[in-house]
Amino acid sequence: MGIPVGVIGASGYAGGELLRLLTGHPVFDLSYAAASGRTHGEQDPALVSVHPSLRAGEADHRMGEGLRLSRVSATEAGRRCAAVFLATPPEVSAALAESLLDAGVEVVIDLSPAFRLRDPGLQRRWYPDVRRRGDHDAVCGLPELNRGALADARLIAMPGCLATAAILALLPLCGLPDLALTGIVIDGKAGSTGSGDRLRRSALHAARSGVVGPYAPAGHRHSAEIREALQARGLTTVGGALRLGMSVFAVNLVRGVSITAHVLQDPAADKTGDVDLTQLFRQAYRDEPFIRIRDWAAEAVPLPDPRIVLGSNYCDVAAFRDADANRLVIIAALDNLIKGAAGQAVQACNIRFGLPEVTGLAALPVYPS
Amino acid sequence: MGIPVGVIGASGYAGGELLRLLTGHPVFDLSYAAASGRTHGEQDPALVSVHPSLRAGEADHRMGEGLRLSRVSATEAGRRCAAVFLATPPEVSAALAESLLDAGVEVVIDLSPAFRLRDPGLQRRWYPDVRRRGDHDAVCGLPELNRGALADARLIAMPGCLATAAILALLPLCGLPDLALTGIVIDGKAGSTGSGDRLRRSALHAARSGVVGPYAPAGHRHSAEIREALQARGLTTVGGALRLGMSVFAVNLVRGVSITAHVLQDPAADKTGDVDLTQLFRQAYRDEPFIRIRDWAAEAVPLPDPRIVLGSNYCDVAAFRDADANRLVIIAALDNLIKGAAGQAVQACNIRFGLPEVTGLAALPVYPS
Amino acid sequence: MGIPVGVIGASGYAGGELLRLLTGHPVFDLSYAAASGRTHGEQDPALVSVHPSLRAGEADHRMGEGLRLSRVSATEAGRRCAAVFLATPPEVSAALAESLLDAGVEVVIDLSPAFRLRDPGLQRRWYPDVRRRGDHDAVCGLPELNRGALADARLIAMPGCLATAAILALLPLCGLPDLALTGIVIDGKAGSTGSGDRLRRSALHAARSGVVGPYAPAGHRHSAEIREALQARGLTTVGGALRLGMSVFAVNLVRGVSITAHVLQDPAADKTGDVDLTQLFRQAYRDEPFIRIRDWAAEAVPLPDPRIVLGSNYCDVAAFRDADANRLVIIAALDNLIKGAAGQAVQACNIRFGLPEVTGLAALPVYPS
Amino acid sequence: MGIPVGVIGASGYAGGELLRLLTGHPVFDLSYAAASGRTHGEQDPALVSVHPSLRAGEADHRMGEGLRLSRVSATEAGRRCAAVFLATPPEVSAALAESLLDAGVEVVIDLSPAFRLRDPGLQRRWYPDVRRRGDHDAVCGLPELNRGALADARLIAMPGCLATAAILALLPLCGLPDLALTGIVIDGKAGSTGSGDRLRRSALHAARSGVVGPYAPAGHRHSAEIREALQARGLTTVGGALRLGMSVFAVNLVRGVSITAHVLQDPAADKTGDVDLTQLFRQAYRDEPFIRIRDWAAEAVPLPDPRIVLGSNYCDVAAFRDADANRLVIIAALDNLIKGAAGQAVQACNIRFGLPEVTGLAALPVYPS
Repeated sequence: MGIPVGVIGASGYAGGELLRLLTGHPVFDLSYAAASGRTHGEQDPALVSVHPSLRAGEADHRMGEGLRLSRVSATEAGRRCAAVFLATPPEVSAALAESLLDAGVEVVIDLSPAFRLRDPGLQRRWYPDVRRRGDHDAVCGLPELNRGALADARLIAMPGCLATAAILALLPLCGLPDLALTGIVIDGKAGSTGSGDRLRRSALHAARSGVVGPYAPAGHRHSAEIREALQARGLTTVGGALRLGMSVFAVNLVRGVSITAHVLQDPAADKTGDVDLTQLFRQAYRDEPFIRIRDWAAEAVPLPDPRIVLGSNYCDVAAFRDADANRLVIIAALDNLIKGAAGQAVQACNIRFGLPEVTGLAALPVYPS
Repeated sequence: MGIPVGVIGASGYAGGELLRLLTGHPVFDLSYAAASGRTHGEQDPALVSVHPSLRAGEADHRMGEGLRLSRVSATEAGRRCAAVFLATPPEVSAALAESLLDAGVEVVIDLSPAFRLRDPGLQRRWYPDVRRRGDHDAVCGLPELNRGALADARLIAMPGCLATAAILALLPLCGLPDLALTGIVIDGKAGSTGSGDRLRRSALHAARSGVVGPYAPAGHRHSAEIREALQARGLTTVGGALRLGMSVFAVNLVRGVSITAHVLQDPAADKTGDVDLTQLFRQAYRDEPFIRIRDWAAEAVPLPDPRIVLGSNYCDVAAFRDADANRLVIIAALDNLIKGAAGQAVQACNIRFGLPEVTGLAALPVYPS
Repeated sequence: MGIPVGVIGASGYAGGELLRLLTGHPVFDLSYAAASGRTHGEQDPALVSVHPSLRAGEADHRMGEGLRLSRVSATEAGRRCAAVFLATPPEVSAALAESLLDAGVEVVIDLSPAFRLRDPGLQRRWYPDVRRRGDHDAVCGLPELNRGALADARLIAMPGCLATAAILALLPLCGLPDLALTGIVIDGKAGSTGSGDRLRRSALHAARSGVVGPYAPAGHRHSAEIREALQARGLTTVGGALRLGMSVFAVNLVRGVSITAHVLQDPAADKTGDVDLTQLFRQAYRDEPFIRIRDWAAEAVPLPDPRIVLGSNYCDVAAFRDADANRLVIIAALDNLIKGAAGQAVQACNIRFGLPEVTGLAALPVYPS
Repeated sequence: MGIPVGVIGASGYAGGELLRLLTGHPVFDLSYAAASGRTHGEQDPALVSVHPSLRAGEADHRMGEGLRLSRVSATEAGRRCAAVFLATPPEVSAALAESLLDAGVEVVIDLSPAFRLRDPGLQRRWYPDVRRRGDHDAVCGLPELNRGALADARLIAMPGCLATAAILALLPLCGLPDLALTGIVIDGKAGSTGSGDRLRRSALHAARSGVVGPYAPAGHRHSAEIREALQARGLTTVGGALRLGMSVFAVNLVRGVSITAHVLQDPAADKTGDVDLTQLFRQAYRDEPFIRIRDWAAEAVPLPDPRIVLGSNYCDVAAFRDADANRLVIIAALDNLIKGAAGQAVQACNIRFGLPEVTGLAALPVYPS
């Protein structure tokens, strides 16, 4: 007797990953899959012809021809699902979430940025074209930040993949007194699935392969999420608000995100020079099943690296001190389609329904690959 | 109350994959791991420091500091394990298998080529330096070929990754009368993990990245296995023995193997021109949980492709007819560390112990990645 | 006092490569560049904004803002150019070549397949949608095959990249008596620039990266060119016409093509068993500046490999014998945008205008890269 | 009548690139090549068997069997060469430079870090194992910084690839008053050729492919060079010396380096808010043949990117302002084997001998590749 769930936006990369994880989930039953681009037709395609990697073996019928990609219908989703995952563009999510809740869906988990920012002014500045419908307050879906609030949430806004990595890198610093921050720079490196499957010339293999392409030197939208989340936890730079900038590079990965948080301190005022950073991070995340703190003394290869979390819901984190530059260097890496999207959404949904948090998410990384 | 198993050769790529699969296996208990290169020291390293991808989350203790990499000891393995997987070089396997059986291990599953060839003359020609110790007859571990013989095997010889793909590509042709073969050419493409982690200049990233490198234009050792297995099933070329050649290329993959079997027919004698190849293959493999027959009419991307099986125990197969050249083209792709090594070994071991064949091997491919 | 030349189709990959080579050519003056997709507008874009890799340094004005991407005009091309390179789709080339010649262009060098096949029946079968205009006979532009006929050509049809590699691999066999061929299989591996920059989902980085994708298991259009060229030089299989099939795979390269010609012989009739293949090939190509015969005894890495010709006009070739399978294995690799397209077109144009064949093409490969 | 030059350390990646550039150089004659690892043997190997990419075509004898890889001999080098390039480890360079000068070599151009740091204290701290022999003062070989001093140099110390990129990114800021810097962070991304061809497990393709591996989170040795060079030009942070930290990541490139200089300013004191950065950089580099300032308004793809300089001696630079974080973002990309090593060394040697600076270095980037 599983809990029936659905996926809207099931034809894209994050949607496909949700299908994969839900197919292997022991409690959630995938009972509805739809894509917003689909028009009403005579014949809905089988999910396995849209996502041929998910086809079962000849003698196995887990996901045979049965499940099909429907057109989007809030009514239908409401009839079939207790929970619906939205892997849709923000404009679509902003409009759809309310309809789904009205149609009787218990909880909507939105992977888009539609509901992420709490401050209406920030929302207008960063997402001027996204008009939220309804007055449901969204709850941030990052378990490590907000686990307690998920139990009775109706609308859960999952953070972006870069924001997840950056917030997890910086969260343990939030309680630290006398850090004397003068500025934080996030340098992000991202694989191609993070940009979705929209057709554009710069996304072609011949154009995108082998790049170290600065696609957002400044002003990436995730920087607003990161600032809002961390300021809410008390992280500030000397003299006022949090000065945090982010630059993001496309690198030659399909899957995976790595961020480096360069944390600059005022050498005159910093009193944290003898804090053992690895211990601080271990302590902060001691109850977390999906955070792994890396300690260079024990590792065979340079870590964190998105390769070494690939296929898993882990976020690897390591912290370093650069005494020459009064700088802390915190690196976090995750699989952008799992801990940065579908996996973390399932994790949040597990919490929402009172299941053990790791249910369906225990896969170890597929390495080397 | 699981079945205790061990891995010798646990520090390499196939060894690490065995550790990963066994950690997630619901019946086999990983109770011993050793590496043949390890010398006796004061302190055995933790497995997770040798394979940092396998480290558990901060709040999870599946594979914490507990399991360590021991030095190789047949006695110790015999005391602790019902089954032992050997991911060792053929010279080591050839000597070790008997000691393990003598020490009380119920079954040894060898991933090396030490015991693959049945004909002693072929063995001497292709592996002159490998001296098998003992008189245990090895059973071929390819389930699709030899499932029945695995139930009471004591020594199981797993086929090579290229051989697995090639045999699975050609097996359905074995029963076909009037095929009038004039020759078969296997063109293989292989990722870098297939060559192990031995240090050599040609294996460096700067040398190996981006190659289409013909590392075995002719005379690859897997070709002997393939010929022996197929001839035993009655596949021959017109006029006598099986004329089958293989050329293998290093390509820019870490994981994955693809082979193309180009099957040439005598146009005058061939009477199979109206056989529906896809149906033939579907029928041949209708009871197989890990074979997926691909039909271009239903696929979104060109298949089979090793990418689309990555992280899974699937072997994808598709067959085409080239009327212009009296040629069948059969393509097979698999993950060389799973269906080509560790996964197939676990599959054989499942059969050996009467477990459902898919136990611990149900993971769907991680795609795209 | 250079020879003025133009490029039509200058916005694509082959077009960009023509611009690069012509910019560095000491005799040809790039005096016209156009793209068929361009509409007439107020302002033509600078070539360096379409191809930012070609921008000159701050203090260098080789290709500054001067050259612009015009709309296509045969009249304009005729006024400005002695020779025009067409890097356009075959439908466009088929219509444009005659207009250019009529407008006074001395020679048109077409990189598309529009004029490649000589047999009208083959042309109709393989390119049903390409209607050649005019009655100009095209001359095949492969210098190693057809150097003599280029000196007074008006319309030169450059062979495809795979066809160039395959013909160069097989040409030295053409004169060989008693070869007793029973069939030839070409297994091709190709990078993504070979398919052009048309937008389609399967060409996205996330879809195309890391593939070994059989995009043409049989029936690739280049196979018709290859058969026609080799049959014209007398290569046949026992019992009649040339049985030659080709299968082509997309691999994880941007630039580069590798083909393997698997040449099967009748063991009873073959009398070439003691031919020294490397010597045969060295002899056949002893006057060729752009062919390099590879001998495994002398090479540090497995060759031929498209990596090791990257950035150059070389085609590397090596031949092997597989006695176990009565098979010759001939491997050829080239840079598909240079020897497979733009470079070879410049080479043909050099010959056409009586220049030393290597003019502007002397760059050594950029390796490793 | 060329100028005879030699390369010591000719078997590695930078050595091979020197051979390639010198083979195509119209004035320098490559007359000696040696490798420090070579022992005296009966037969020195041909250079083309060590670097098979450099082999000439069958009918071309530029670099046939003639040039061989000798053992290292300062006497021999002195007899044959006016200039010697050292692509050797720093310990070797430190000892060899003096012997070469004593043997009559006019100028030694060292690509290692042996002679880079001027301050003896810094040298002892960062290179404790490198003992410089002799009392020759080395001149920094970065032309854009130090062109004037090269004309009569006897010992030229080429900067590292990351240092070249970082210094070129920051140099235009050196003259700027009221910048009110509070700190600079360099985030570097580097390909595998930058680490040389030493055998180690982490450099294997299977281990290094697909990484975003933080191999130097802090304390990279190039950071000392960068600080010394920029402080000498007057760049400081508020309150004293230059606070500059660097973190370097291995990324999935063979060739290429990208650095991002995140420049943090004190929002209260900064008076540069209305400076047009692109104009500032254009002006600073207006006489430079190998610097290209990128302006996002004119580019088709995100730049600078090491892909788009590959095969050339260009360094691409772009500057951005992040008003949200009081930050300047300056990105520089280069080919680490050319502008980051061999090409820049040839550029410096051109200046030393009074040749036009671009001699032999005019190749445009090979893109896309």
